Amino acid sequence: MNNSTHSNPNPAFGAHLMAYAGIPTFMRRPASRDLEDIDVAIVGIPFDSGAASWRSGTRFGPRKIRENSLQIWGHNRVLKASPLETLNVGDYGDIAVDPTNINTTVDQIVAEVSAIIAADTQVISLGGDHSITYPLLKAHAAKYGPLAVVHFDSHTDTYRFDHVQHATPFYFGLAEGLIDKEAYIQVGIRGPVEEPNEIEDAEAQGARVLTIEQCFDMGVPAIIEAIHAHVGNRPVYVSLDIDAIDPAYAPGTGTPEVGGFTSYQMLQLVRGLRGLNTVGFDLVEVSPAYDHGDVTSILAANLVFEFLSLLALQREGA
Amino acid sequence: MNNSTHSNPNPAFGAHLMAYAGIPTFMRRPASRDLEDIDVAIVGIPFDSGAASWRSGTRFGPRKIRENSLQIWGHNRVLKASPLETLNVGDYGDIAVDPTNINTTVDQIVAEVSAIIAADTQVISLGGDHSITYPLLKAHAAKYGPLAVVHFDSHTDTYRFDHVQHATPFYFGLAEGLIDKEAYIQVGIRGPVEEPNEIEDAEAQGARVLTIEQCFDMGVPAIIEAIHAHVGNRPVYVSLDIDAIDPAYAPGTGTPEVGGFTSYQMLQLVRGLRGLNTVGFDLVEVSPAYDHGDVTSILAANLVFEFLSLLALQREGA
Amino acid sequence: MNNSTHSNPNPAFGAHLMAYAGIPTFMRRPASRDLEDIDVAIVGIPFDSGAASWRSGTRFGPRKIRENSLQIWGHNRVLKASPLETLNVGDYGDIAVDPTNINTTVDQIVAEVSAIIAADTQVISLGGDHSITYPLLKAHAAKYGPLAVVHFDSHTDTYRFDHVQHATPFYFGLAEGLIDKEAYIQVGIRGPVEEPNEIEDAEAQGARVLTIEQCFDMGVPAIIEAIHAHVGNRPVYVSLDIDAIDPAYAPGTGTPEVGGFTSYQMLQLVRGLRGLNTVGFDLVEVSPAYDHGDVTSILAANLVFEFLSLLALQREGA
Amino acid sequence: MNNSTHSNPNPAFGAHLMAYAGIPTFMRRPASRDLEDIDVAIVGIPFDSGAASWRSGTRFGPRKIRENSLQIWGHNRVLKASPLETLNVGDYGDIAVDPTNINTTVDQIVAEVSAIIAADTQVISLGGDHSITYPLLKAHAAKYGPLAVVHFDSHTDTYRFDHVQHATPFYFGLAEGLIDKEAYIQVGIRGPVEEPNEIEDAEAQGARVLTIEQCFDMGVPAIIEAIHAHVGNRPVYVSLDIDAIDPAYAPGTGTPEVGGFTSYQMLQLVRGLRGLNTVGFDLVEVSPAYDHGDVTSILAANLVFEFLSLLALQREGA
Amino acid sequence: MNNSTHSNPNPAFGAHLMAYAGIPTFMRRPASRDLEDIDVAIVGIPFDSGAASWRSGTRFGPRKIRENSLQIWGHNRVLKASPLETLNVGDYGDIAVDPTNINTTVDQIVAEVSAIIAADTQVISLGGDHSITYPLLKAHAAKYGPLAVVHFDSHTDTYRFDHVQHATPFYFGLAEGLIDKEAYIQVGIRGPVEEPNEIEDAEAQGARVLTIEQCFDMGVPAIIEAIHAHVGNRPVYVSLDIDAIDPAYAPGTGTPEVGGFTSYQMLQLVRGLRGLNTVGFDLVEVSPAYDHGDVTSILAANLVFEFLSLLALQREGA
Amino acid sequence: MNNSTHSNPNPAFGAHLMAYAGIPTFMRRPASRDLEDIDVAIVGIPFDSGAASWRSGTRFGPRKIRENSLQIWGHNRVLKASPLETLNVGDYGDIAVDPTNINTTVDQIVAEVSAIIAADTQVISLGGDHSITYPLLKAHAAKYGPLAVVHFDSHTDTYRFDHVQHATPFYFGLAEGLIDKEAYIQVGIRGPVEEPNEIEDAEAQGARVLTIEQCFDMGVPAIIEAIHAHVGNRPVYVSLDIDAIDPAYAPGTGTPEVGGFTSYQMLQLVRGLRGLNTVGFDLVEVSPAYDHGDVTSILAANLVFEFLSLLALQREGA
Repeated sequence: MNNSTHSNPNPAFGAHLMAYAGIPTFMRRPASRDLEDIDVAIVGIPFDSGAASWRSGTRFGPRKIRENSLQIWGHNRVLKASPLETLNVGDYGDIAVDPTNINTTVDQIVAEVSAIIAADTQVISLGGDHSITYPLLKAHAAKYGPLAVVHFDSHTDTYRFDHVQHATPFYFGLAEGLIDKEAYIQVGIRGPVEEPNEIEDAEAQGARVLTIEQCFDMGVPAIIEAIHAHVGNRPVYVSLDIDAIDPAYAPGTGTPEVGGFTSYQMLQLVRGLRGLNTVGFDLVEVSPAYDHGDVTSILAANLVFEFLSLLALQREGA
Repeated sequence: MNNSTHSNPNPAFGAHLMAYAGIPTFMRRPASRDLEDIDVAIVGIPFDSGAASWRSGTRFGPRKIRENSLQIWGHNRVLKASPLETLNVGDYGDIAVDPTNINTTVDQIVAEVSAIIAADTQVISLGGDHSITYPLLKAHAAKYGPLAVVHFDSHTDTYRFDHVQHATPFYFGLAEGLIDKEAYIQVGIRGPVEEPNEIEDAEAQGARVLTIEQCFDMGVPAIIEAIHAHVGNRPVYVSLDIDAIDPAYAPGTGTPEVGGFTSYQMLQLVRGLRGLNTVGFDLVEVSPAYDHGDVTSILAANLVFEFLSLLALQREGA
Repeated sequence: MNNSTHSNPNPAFGAHLMAYAGIPTFMRRPASRDLEDIDVAIVGIPFDSGAASWRSGTRFGPRKIRENSLQIWGHNRVLKASPLETLNVGDYGDIAVDPTNINTTVDQIVAEVSAIIAADTQVISLGGDHSITYPLLKAHAAKYGPLAVVHFDSHTDTYRFDHVQHATPFYFGLAEGLIDKEAYIQVGIRGPVEEPNEIEDAEAQGARVLTIEQCFDMGVPAIIEAIHAHVGNRPVYVSLDIDAIDPAYAPGTGTPEVGGFTSYQMLQLVRGLRGLNTVGFDLVEVSPAYDHGDVTSILAANLVFEFLSLLALQREGA
Repeated sequence: MNNSTHSNPNPAFGAHLMAYAGIPTFMRRPASRDLEDIDVAIVGIPFDSGAASWRSGTRFGPRKIRENSLQIWGHNRVLKASPLETLNVGDYGDIAVDPTNINTTVDQIVAEVSAIIAADTQVISLGGDHSITYPLLKAHAAKYGPLAVVHFDSHTDTYRFDHVQHATPFYFGLAEGLIDKEAYIQVGIRGPVEEPNEIEDAEAQGARVLTIEQCFDMGVPAIIEAIHAHVGNRPVYVSLDIDAIDPAYAPGTGTPEVGGFTSYQMLQLVRGLRGLNTVGFDLVEVSPAYDHGDVTSILAANLVFEFLSLLALQREGA
Repeated sequence: MNNSTHSNPNPAFGAHLMAYAGIPTFMRRPASRDLEDIDVAIVGIPFDSGAASWRSGTRFGPRKIRENSLQIWGHNRVLKASPLETLNVGDYGDIAVDPTNINTTVDQIVAEVSAIIAADTQVISLGGDHSITYPLLKAHAAKYGPLAVVHFDSHTDTYRFDHVQHATPFYFGLAEGLIDKEAYIQVGIRGPVEEPNEIEDAEAQGARVLTIEQCFDMGVPAIIEAIHAHVGNRPVYVSLDIDAIDPAYAPGTGTPEVGGFTSYQMLQLVRGLRGLNTVGFDLVEVSPAYDHGDVTSILAANLVFEFLSLLALQREGA
Repeated sequence: MNNSTHSNPNPAFGAHLMAYAGIPTFMRRPASRDLEDIDVAIVGIPFDSGAASWRSGTRFGPRKIRENSLQIWGHNRVLKASPLETLNVGDYGDIAVDPTNINTTVDQIVAEVSAIIAADTQVISLGGDHSITYPLLKAHAAKYGPLAVVHFDSHTDTYRFDHVQHATPFYFGLAEGLIDKEAYIQVGIRGPVEEPNEIEDAEAQGARVLTIEQCFDMGVPAIIEAIHAHVGNRPVYVSLDIDAIDPAYAPGTGTPEVGGFTSYQMLQLVRGLRGLNTVGFDLVEVSPAYDHGDVTSILAANLVFEFLSLLALQREGA
């Protein structure tokens, strides 16, 4: 049971039920598109046709993350936040995407997310593949101007391909000025690369890159410090590709990359974003058909809870 | 998209979305406990502590059946029924069960289901294990008197044990007069038995038993005829244990029994109930952790759609 | 070991190896795009962004079907054909598809398949979702004129949507005159439908529809007779959606539909196509992530072997 | 609870427990190598290095079959037999095999099984791959002379290879005179073959072959009649390769072959052996790593229970 | 082969066999309820109806842990102990539990375990869910007085609910004086909590709590030191919930909590208990249906071997 | 796309395709047994009958590793190597093994590998179980003399058994003088042992053993230093048993041992071999049937890429 000042008024959702029971909205928040008084909307974007490199299947990510959010209790012990009390959180449901058409999908995401944030509701998006970050950046930059971006990933996703797909959101984000080149940091990059200068090229485009080797050498506190130093007090968008975490902890993803963060490290990294002026979040690339025992979705749901906790602290000015 | 006169007024549920998207209520019907104008309520009963013989896990049955109902279109081509148009169907969500206490759970089920049917809303219950049929019989018999029962199963579930569990609902149902002994028929019984006289004992208690050998010898049309002949025009309760179907078609169940019906045969059998005066339905023993590719839940969701179609025909007097 | 007059000249493929060993081309045929003297090309089309209704994942279909073809011996005992001896079969590999763009993918398929059949090589395509049948019909109709079509499926796939996806290939095929309306037959159609007149609408568009109920009432020999009667000696294209078969036998698919054919019935149906003037085949919708023990891919590989056997008999004039 | 006159005297095995509890011997019979008064011994032979064609993994077959035997009740309703009362059944445990050496394994099996049957204990062997049938035939033929054999399988296993493996037990059995060529029948043979004359060659070696096509045309009663006619009242050895059954029902096997028997058909076929003078049984090729929900092992355990029931009837002269 | 002075006298268990063969008692120890000369009994408690919060399925824990114990060799290289030589270890089998009735189950566990320890046999219990620890504490406290407790877990399990279930064993243990409030330590607590003061409340009840953040900051040696300092030389009961370990290492559990210990850390922690005066152990919450490749059960079996090694050292006074 | 100076000239392999498409040779290198100009051959050895202790299934290792190599890009960012440009890498396919006969298999491996290295092509072997390392040592020692060996494993594999199997390759390698006793180091050894002196015995035979406890105490850089110090500039053979890595990261293996390396640690250890004079590599014991989401095979493919990178640096004299 997730105690909350803003409890779900509809008993059919089962606010009084345990994790195995009831209709799975995110943490039993009301499913609604009425944004009045909604501080934060959980928005599913079940699009996986941007996964041009390997496995599809992330279209089932939002549903599985919601399902596994039901076991999460309401108080964040580490951050000392009770986000469901501090904030009125709503579950917007999913945006209508078209697997056969990435362009209309991009437009649809921009339109719906822009409308949500226009209503002064913050958005936490659940992917879907990483291509959805491009329209999300677009919608947020339209409101906030060029965004500082904290990007957790094993891949740079700044490939200079000529169309939107899950390897290019940050290439287009940088090229189109959606991202502030002074304040974009990539954390956890690893694996073999296509071209020897791939990291250099990402940096030439405007990314500060922390490779996994640097991360493991620095340790979590120093990474957090580097993030804060790089983005400062600008409006920040946070994009977390679940493959930033090692496949041992997050096997259910489309392009797993070995040698990554542990779940504890990622939790600590996200908690370390405390104090930033965050304006948007996404968590992408959870692919349930490749998961087992839902361990990846459970981790994803917990990371979304950390996002909510950060927003609660922000609201409290903490 | 499930077209319906009674569409879900809440867009967050995603009536405009495809099967992989949106919040999974049964066939996207509104989740609500407001029973006004609701003709039929889908009620989840995620209780699996009655599974005293083998595997637990049916507590996840209702959620998975709902999830896999989303691909079902609205018109029943064979029965020529459009249940979501003829009937106002609601998703009641799940009843609060207590895995540690079957007695309070039985009471809770009786109380909630009695209240629903008192509101002139018919109930289709999604299990959970077969022990839930005992309180369901109790609630329905309180309204309708001793019930004719059509019971699809591989096991008689009339074991003379001294407490409620998933092998005894019909023993108690008969012993307590909830079932009309002249009008109770078991279909599909098979497998080794504990005592040589188990079938005879079930018949002595008041069951007409059609073993799977008789069923396969008779053929589907003759089984349907036998059911109609046995229950006549009495108020009928239908209880379908998914293990009536062969494990090839329904592996995700707690006590699989080899040598059963095909999915097509079961669909035809359920369609063959057309014309009965049915007052309640349950579908039990779907155990997702033992399923693969959700084939069992998909079958279960389709059988529930057939139940709805029967109710629609009943309403239309067809 | 698959004995063949046209053995794979490259020992690295392991013509001398057992099923678990070696590089998996289809039945160990040479992987080559040199079509000279190639009678039949196995062509993979790993595209799954046309799967607009439910699950993605068929992009891994071609690879898994190839892998499971390795255990198939060379002689068809029932049809008395040795296709790898009668025909020079090549494995073309996969066509380059773009998951983010169905239009360029359609064009690419049309271009490559047209070039192959222009070289007098017949094509057996491995999907991929059913949207690929639209460009396949286009390529074949350009050579052979409006095609007779034998279409095994649980869904009509003649939905009047305005763009190409896996529910529309035959709608566009009929609308654009790629299919001969006098000679198009659908076999195995079942399940709930969106609109009450869906079957009638498919027939109005030009399909002869045999629903699963009709099929099970007629029996396999009568279905075969009906197919032959309907298509006569026209050039025939055969499209087999694996979901025509029951999920018990073929769980690994994107939109499983319960109550379908057994594997034996489907084998007999395909063998029953003997004597038709077949000019092209596809087998679509195998989705390995939802399979278990590869049973769906094994069945698919065997059905492709039956296709090859039909072509061998055709060649022999048998 | 499996009631039995010959109950397991050791309570640690849990004769009073339900299927999920206790140490898994076959149907909770005592694990013992003391054969005194033991009528039938269940003998595991966890050898899978004879699986030369495709998948290994049958070494875990005996354990999984035992585990899934625990849900089987003691009375055979169809055959009207209570084998655990009529017979004193023991669980011998497993024979020590050597995966690296098929020759010493063959010798070990011959030695141990010969010793068991020398003690007038009948043996039901659980494989392991089909190569183990060769030493089993050897041990039984040494006692009973050339054996009539009823062989359920999708493959002939009479390949003329020069060494023992799972495709050759009957080739060597025939060649070495262990099998009576007048009384050997294969039931369910199907699939593509390596050489066009494979069936003819099996028949030339001494097998009567009923292909699956013949079986499905004849129907179960006629198959049973043919078996009885062919083997008469000779001492019969029964070898059941689980892949005789369709992969939908028995996916957990090493070389699945599509288009086979249903579980019901196989149960009826085995029950139809009633009246034969059976002297030995084996059930082979269950490969748990390729199973799901244990459906294959559950079926196998039930078939072994049918074997036991046949022996009980034989003992009773019924 | 597990060499042991106290070898299993029954060859049917297969002391001479490798891990894939033989009847799976724990490390091939004799299955027996004759406790004479038995120093330590492995006792299975396959009860999962106490799992009130999320997934059921731990009833299969004891069997799977036994099965995966067969690969464990007899000498503990790190602790320099050969527990099967030092101690006479027996496999008691499973206690008869009733999934429908937690109260009779609690009584049954208390009765049987009390009888075992009354015979001067120490007990290592295999769960089952964590509710079984309540009767285990009861049985041990009756003999030893209020117990020092070392409790590895991700959850406090000191919830103030009014009935026994898997979130309350230590609440009742403390409330009923079964646990010595001066000597109870929880190690590894993490995750979101229901109420902000949950940790404080656990401490108010009498627990010393080491959260995972504290644990990771302290490091393993300091945790071990803290444990020794807290429990001193009192009689200690050790309860290890497998979800103390991260889901990457132990996915097969009922309520996985991300961000936990590695398997190596947990092995080191358990080894660090050396020198304590341990009087009882349990390992709970292994849920095989959510495991893959048995990794969780393998880890659990190894941890039980470490428990045995600690008892061996205790016996040797080492 | 894996850019390479030595691109695959056969477009059917799909050098232009993404990971889900095309025929899976290792990193799309040409499948060929023509060794002319081939610097390094990837050689599959799908033999699993040497797995005498627990699970079989590694015969599918080579195929799965190839399949998962397709997502690996061509440049090693950490080692600054582009092995597919520096070296002409070929995929030799698989060696013909005989699961029923380890002796002929050993001879076959020796013969084929000797021929390859005689052609001045270096070999990276993909197992298969660890028994294949014995013939691999034999072939390499025949060319290079007694070999320095770096052996990553959780087990010593120096058991003094009298025949070749997966626990003895290094026992025979040492006993037959294939290994230089001054330059053989084992890294990562752990788990319970059969005899108390097992490590001492391995050292007596000639191994330097670094147990996992020593490894975790030393840290990766010190392990690397110890390896270099021990093997010096001798010709080195590297054998990597995937079970050196923890089952969380590498569950798909035959004899998992808990408490091992992370994937990052193993990547760093392999990269640390830079500068050694390596003459051969093997990676063994990947067992896909026990894997999930292919995480083990993905890790294995990446480790092979590191092997290739080391050879590239060696070639460049870097």
